Amino acid sequence: MITLKVKLSKREYPIIVGDGAFDEALKTFSQLVSQKRSVFCIADSAVLKAHTEKAKKLSSVAKIISVKGGEASKSIKKFAELCSILAQEHADRKSAIVAWGGGVIGDLTGFVSASYMRGADFYQIPTTLLSMVDSSVGGKTGINIAEGKNLVGAFHQPKAVFTDMSFLKTLPKRQFSAGMAEVIKCAVLGDSRFFKKLASQKEKMSYNSPMLADAIVKACSLKAKVVADDERETASQGGRALLNLGHTFGHAIEHCAGYGKYLHGEAVAIGMVMVAVLSRRMGLIGDSEISEIVDMLKFADLPTSLRTPISADDFIDAMLRDKKSVSGQLRFVVIDSIGKTHTENVDKKIVKKAIADFQKM
Amino acid sequence: MITLKVKLSKREYPIIVGDGAFDEALKTFSQLVSQKRSVFCIADSAVLKAHTEKAKKLSSVAKIISVKGGEASKSIKKFAELCSILAQEHADRKSAIVAWGGGVIGDLTGFVSASYMRGADFYQIPTTLLSMVDSSVGGKTGINIAEGKNLVGAFHQPKAVFTDMSFLKTLPKRQFSAGMAEVIKCAVLGDSRFFKKLASQKEKMSYNSPMLADAIVKACSLKAKVVADDERETASQGGRALLNLGHTFGHAIEHCAGYGKYLHGEAVAIGMVMVAVLSRRMGLIGDSEISEIVDMLKFADLPTSLRTPISADDFIDAMLRDKKSVSGQLRFVVIDSIGKTHTENVDKKIVKKAIADFQKM
Repeated sequence: MITLKVKLSKREYPIIVGDGAFDEALKTFSQLVSQKRSVFCIADSAVLKAHTEKAKKLSSVAKIISVKGGEASKSIKKFAELCSILAQEHADRKSAIVAWGGGVIGDLTGFVSASYMRGADFYQIPTTLLSMVDSSVGGKTGINIAEGKNLVGAFHQPKAVFTDMSFLKTLPKRQFSAGMAEVIKCAVLGDSRFFKKLASQKEKMSYNSPMLADAIVKACSLKAKVVADDERETASQGGRALLNLGHTFGHAIEHCAGYGKYLHGEAVAIGMVMVAVLSRRMGLIGDSEISEIVDMLKFADLPTSLRTPISADDFIDAMLRDKKSVSGQLRFVVIDSIGKTHTENVDKKIVKKAIADFQKM
Repeated sequence: MITLKVKLSKREYPIIVGDGAFDEALKTFSQLVSQKRSVFCIADSAVLKAHTEKAKKLSSVAKIISVKGGEASKSIKKFAELCSILAQEHADRKSAIVAWGGGVIGDLTGFVSASYMRGADFYQIPTTLLSMVDSSVGGKTGINIAEGKNLVGAFHQPKAVFTDMSFLKTLPKRQFSAGMAEVIKCAVLGDSRFFKKLASQKEKMSYNSPMLADAIVKACSLKAKVVADDERETASQGGRALLNLGHTFGHAIEHCAGYGKYLHGEAVAIGMVMVAVLSRRMGLIGDSEISEIVDMLKFADLPTSLRTPISADDFIDAMLRDKKSVSGQLRFVVIDSIGKTHTENVDKKIVKKAIADFQKM
């Protein structure tokens, strides 16, 4: 097992990566129970079904609350329901709240643990590749409202993350690919050597690739480094916002197509292609960089174009509503070269032209 | 005008107390607008009606959103509705969110500003005595759920508080008294000289008492001192929890009687009498201290007994659900002497006996 320490301004927390990470979680929760602290685990119902043995073990130290996976659960209604259940079960300020599932469960549970009694300790057991590389670093939690994704939430850092790759055995192939989108994103935004290493792989990455643990740790540590410098995304240039590479377009795709049509990672993959096209339109990169990125996404079985077109106006409107938009400006992470990116406000006209370029590809 | 600086771990913010404080607020918001930041003000509809001139001035620098006052507005439904309105109005991360009203508007708006896009800048213009002395220090925000009061919320400190006492002219007498409960609480919990000064007043306190501004500043600075040492209420002994004097019983009263039956300050007044009786039962104080506290509360036109009895079992059950209860223990701020208090877990049997003593008074 590998332990990565994520440094925050006031403390640090471990991400424990390896096949025995779930057992480490059990040990940690047992210790909490022995300190007379109660543990509540909000778990994806599909995960509970697929891992009955693990669920049984966990239920001896934690009260398990089953939640249906899928973006629809990231709602205010579900948030309210979980807070009520915790109160009915007499969860108190010293209780620990655990997310066991993918990004949806993590984001939802994170916001519950941030808000229940104004904040309880939060632990994560991610079960998808996406949540292992994305949600376990950064402390972003949130739910969706009709007006947009993650518009309501909190910064709430976990006490520890237990990344057990054995969960990936039962992960559908499409979900695995969606996770690879975030791994590739990390390489594109800040590590050209990592990008080359990924590009040199002959075999497609899978749950038993020898390179997987390293790729997870690499992606997490790259993200951790960016987050450490800018924990609450307040830097005016670069900083944490760089992690949004592909996300400005990606969120708009999810919003316009309707949440659930594309997996988050799929939307980010298409968003990365779009922002690469935008960067070309701005004269930053050429055709070859676009090909390299598109080829790598395709090799990971990720989409690089929209299934159903979205008009430029719909894109612009959705992006203006996005949290990343400030004072009516469209802000993007643009690509200077593979492994080097920066944030920039881009004129609407140029964005529209880039959307047209992309639609023609 | 008096400016009190409240020190937090990383920054400080001003509480500006005086008749011109509203104009100071207007100046501050104008500056934000000139920096291309949008300002949203969530205001009590009754305040808007009573202060049309001020509302007109404010509307030139801020988008005003009217909310009905009263505990019923501290709901998840209203929280969700406000987040949606902000999104529809294109509020962004740099927007400032202002609460203009009493404690309900402050708590609700505070949680909205803590959660909207994971946190926006928060300003307060309290209009009731209670919110001036209680909600403007401490950063506690929250909403109610069926299971209890303030069970969902966040710690979110304001950027500035503008305490304009001219709002108190139109405050109903009953509400003024409710605010006095928190002023008296501050004296009982940590300042015997302040208690004596209050006790020596011949005239009842009102919006134009010469002592009022000082009393507000005194109560706020006492609270600020306690909060500075324990911003997130993590101290195991004393610390911020001392501010809950009278609140363990008080919250239970509000919960059992149904929110709205008693004003918060009224419930705290009765709660203080109950905890004084509990402290006597524990051998900490005698009859004379109880009389002094009861007399002062009565002089401020506050209730010191329940209108409709609540059974000891209902009290215990409600208190176990309270945020202050940890691991099934009942925890109280008990009174050693007027001006000196400490936190202690108290056995259920003793609590039941004290409730019986109180019911017999």
